[in-house]
Amino acid sequence: MWRDLAPVGRSASSGGYFRQPWASAETELRSWFVEQCAARGLTVETDGIGNQVAWWSPETASGPSVLTGSHLDSVLDGGAYDGPLGVVSALAAVDTLRERGFSPARPIGIGVFVEEEGSRFGRACLGSRLATGTTTWEDASELRDRDGVFLADAISASGLDPSRGLVDLDRVGTFVELHVEQGRDLVDRDVAVGLASEIWPHGRWRFDFAGQANHAGTTRMEDRHDPMLTYAMTALAANKQARLAGQRATFGRITVEPNGTNAVPSLVTAWLDARASSDDALASLVAEVERQADDRAGRDGTSLVVTPESVSGSVAFDPDLAARLAGLGDWPVIPTQAGHDAGILSDAGIPTAMIFVRNPTGVSHSPDERAETADCLAGVEALADVLAELAGVPA
Amino acid sequence: MWRDLAPVGRSASSGGYFRQPWASAETELRSWFVEQCAARGLTVETDGIGNQVAWWSPETASGPSVLTGSHLDSVLDGGAYDGPLGVVSALAAVDTLRERGFSPARPIGIGVFVEEEGSRFGRACLGSRLATGTTTWEDASELRDRDGVFLADAISASGLDPSRGLVDLDRVGTFVELHVEQGRDLVDRDVAVGLASEIWPHGRWRFDFAGQANHAGTTRMEDRHDPMLTYAMTALAANKQARLAGQRATFGRITVEPNGTNAVPSLVTAWLDARASSDDALASLVAEVERQADDRAGRDGTSLVVTPESVSGSVAFDPDLAARLAGLGDWPVIPTQAGHDAGILSDAGIPTAMIFVRNPTGVSHSPDERAETADCLAGVEALADVLAELAGVPA
Repeated sequence: MWRDLAPVGRSASSGGYFRQPWASAETELRSWFVEQCAARGLTVETDGIGNQVAWWSPETASGPSVLTGSHLDSVLDGGAYDGPLGVVSALAAVDTLRERGFSPARPIGIGVFVEEEGSRFGRACLGSRLATGTTTWEDASELRDRDGVFLADAISASGLDPSRGLVDLDRVGTFVELHVEQGRDLVDRDVAVGLASEIWPHGRWRFDFAGQANHAGTTRMEDRHDPMLTYAMTALAANKQARLAGQRATFGRITVEPNGTNAVPSLVTAWLDARASSDDALASLVAEVERQADDRAGRDGTSLVVTPESVSGSVAFDPDLAARLAGLGDWPVIPTQAGHDAGILSDAGIPTAMIFVRNPTGVSHSPDERAETADCLAGVEALADVLAELAGVPA
Repeated sequence: MWRDLAPVGRSASSGGYFRQPWASAETELRSWFVEQCAARGLTVETDGIGNQVAWWSPETASGPSVLTGSHLDSVLDGGAYDGPLGVVSALAAVDTLRERGFSPARPIGIGVFVEEEGSRFGRACLGSRLATGTTTWEDASELRDRDGVFLADAISASGLDPSRGLVDLDRVGTFVELHVEQGRDLVDRDVAVGLASEIWPHGRWRFDFAGQANHAGTTRMEDRHDPMLTYAMTALAANKQARLAGQRATFGRITVEPNGTNAVPSLVTAWLDARASSDDALASLVAEVERQADDRAGRDGTSLVVTPESVSGSVAFDPDLAARLAGLGDWPVIPTQAGHDAGILSDAGIPTAMIFVRNPTGVSHSPDERAETADCLAGVEALADVLAELAGVPA
C-alpha cells in the first residue's frame, strides 16, 4: 500500500507532500482508498464534502460501531506518515483480524476525514468538525483559501456535492485513531507504541501589523512606520515566552504587502500557532505575546489587530478507555500537542482513544518525517488488538 | 495628460499602481506615449525591449542631442508620480518651449526607459542598463520573474522583439531627468525645485536562511532550527545599524517555505535593500548585518547564504553642469538615496543632471505619494529653462 501512495502529491524538489484538500492529489488518494476497500469487500460511503467511511459489517455484527482511521491530506511540504499511516494501518489491521479468523460482533468502520491539517482553508479538522456539527456549514461556507476561492466552490469543483449531506456518526460507539508520534516521548521511553491521554489546547491567531508604505532608499529610518519591525520583534518575543514556559509558539506563515525589495511594507500579516498545557496557560501566553506586540507597535508607529482563527480547548480522552486499552500491551499513556480528528470526535461525546507509533527523530510536518517499518507493523498489531477488544464483544 | 494616466494599472482597493513591465498596464502606457508624441508631431522610436525615444529635431537642429524623460513603470502598489511626472513634464516642457517660440539648435529627445524599478525582474534600471551596455543581454537573459518567466519570454509575450536591437544613445550629448523628490529636503528648504548632486551607493542582497521544517505544535522550542527567528533578529539588527549610522537598511520582501501556520519553516528568503553615503560605508553596513545574522544563525542552528543581486556604486552627477543649471533659477543642489536611469547614463559617460520637484510628505513608492500642482508646473518651467539652455546653442 505504501508503494501506491509514495508518489501522490510529492514534490520532486523537496521530497515533501502537497496533498491539499479538494485538489488533484487528494482526489487520487480518495480513489485509492475506494479501490483498497473494494479489494477487501468493504462498502465505502463518501459524503457530500469528501469524508469517507468503509464498513466491515458482517451479519454477525450489530449495535454501536467501532470506527478507526485518520486523514490523507498533508500540510504544505509535509511528510508521508502524518495521516496516511492511520488509514493504511486500519486497512492492514482488518487484514490481520481476518487472518486471525476474527469475526466482529460490532460493525468496524475505517474513516478518512478531509482537511485535517487546515492547510487550505485554515480551519484544522474541518471534515470532522462538520461531520460532528462542531462547525456549522453556515460558518464554514464563509471560509476562503489563499486564492480567494470559497469552500463550497472548491468542494463542487472537485466533483462533490455538499448538499448530499455528511457522514452519519450517530451509530459510532467508539473511535480509535492511529497516528505517527510527533515528538520523542516514545523514543525516550524506548517503546514502539503508546496511547494518548490528552491533546493540549491550541489555536491560530492572525496578527495584522499595519504601517505606512514608503521608499526604502529615501525615507530616513526615524521617519518610518515599518510593520516588518513590529512583526520581527513579536516573532522573537513569542518564541522566548513559549521557551521559558515549556509551551509552544510559532510564526511560520507570513504575507507582506506590497512585498517589494525597495518598499517599506504597508502591511505584514502573520499567523501565530500557540499551544500550552492548559486553557489558562494558552490564554496567558497569547495575551503576553499580544501585549509585547502592542508595546512595540506603539514605538514603531504601527498598529496591530489580532484575530483568533481557530481555538481548541484541552481534550482529555476517555481515561477508562485509555487504561483498558493500555493494558492490552503494557503501552504508556502520553499527551500530545497536536490537534487530531480524534479530539473533535472526543469533544462531540464519542468515547475516543489514540494509538501513537514511535517517530525516531520526532520530526513531523516535514519531508524528514519517519517511522521504522518494524514500529509501523507493531502499530498494526496494536490496532488489531484494540479493534478485537472493542468489537469482539456484542453490544 | 494626468487624467489619461490616472486609471491605468491602478488598484481599486489601495489606490496604488501596479505597472509592472511587459504586462498590460505598461503596454497601455506605451501606447499613450506614442499618441501624445504623435499629437505633437514627434517621431517615436521603440526599441526591441520597449525603451522609447521621441525626437523633436527640426532642420535647425544638429549635433549631439539633449535627452530628457524618465520611466512609466511603478513599484508594486506605487504612487502616481514616480516616473510618469518626468515623462509628462518633458512633453509639457516641449509645449512650453514651442509657446515661447523656441527653436532648438540641437535635437531634443524624450526617453522612456523600461523596468526602472526592478519590480518584476529584480534588476533596477534594467532598460537603461541594457541600452548603455552596463548590463549585457547575456547577463539579463538569465533573469526570471516571481513566476519563473525568463526575461526574453516576457518581452516576446508583450509583442516586442529583443533581436530588433536597443535605442542608440551614442548621439546623446546631455541627459536631464525630472523626478518627484523622494524625501523632504526641498520641503525643509521651502523651494519647489532642486537639482541633484549625487546618488548614494545602494544595492540589494538576498538572504537565504535555511533551517529544519517541523511540527509547530509538538516540537519543543529547544529542539527547533527555526530560520524565521534568525530572519527576525536580522531585520531588527539591520534597522538598528542603519538608524545609528544615518544610513538605510530595509527588509521589505520575504518568502517562506512551506509558509504553513502549523509548520516551523524550512527556508526563509528575505531581501535587504541598503544605501549609504559612500561605497565603503555601504560595504561596512552590509558586512555588519551579515555578521550579526551569522552569529544568530549559529545560535539558532540555522544557516545563512547572502547573495548580492545588484550593487550600484556612488554616482556623482557632472558638478559643472549642475552648477550651471542651478544658476538658471537659484535652485539648491541636493543628494538623493534613490537609484535612477540618470545614474546609469551618468555612469556610462553621458553628462547628466536631475531636477527634483518638491514632495510635501516625502512619501514615495506608496499610494500616498504626492506633489502639488503648482510645484509640478514649476518643474515644467524649470525643465523648459534647462532644455532651452542646453539645446539653444549650436554644438
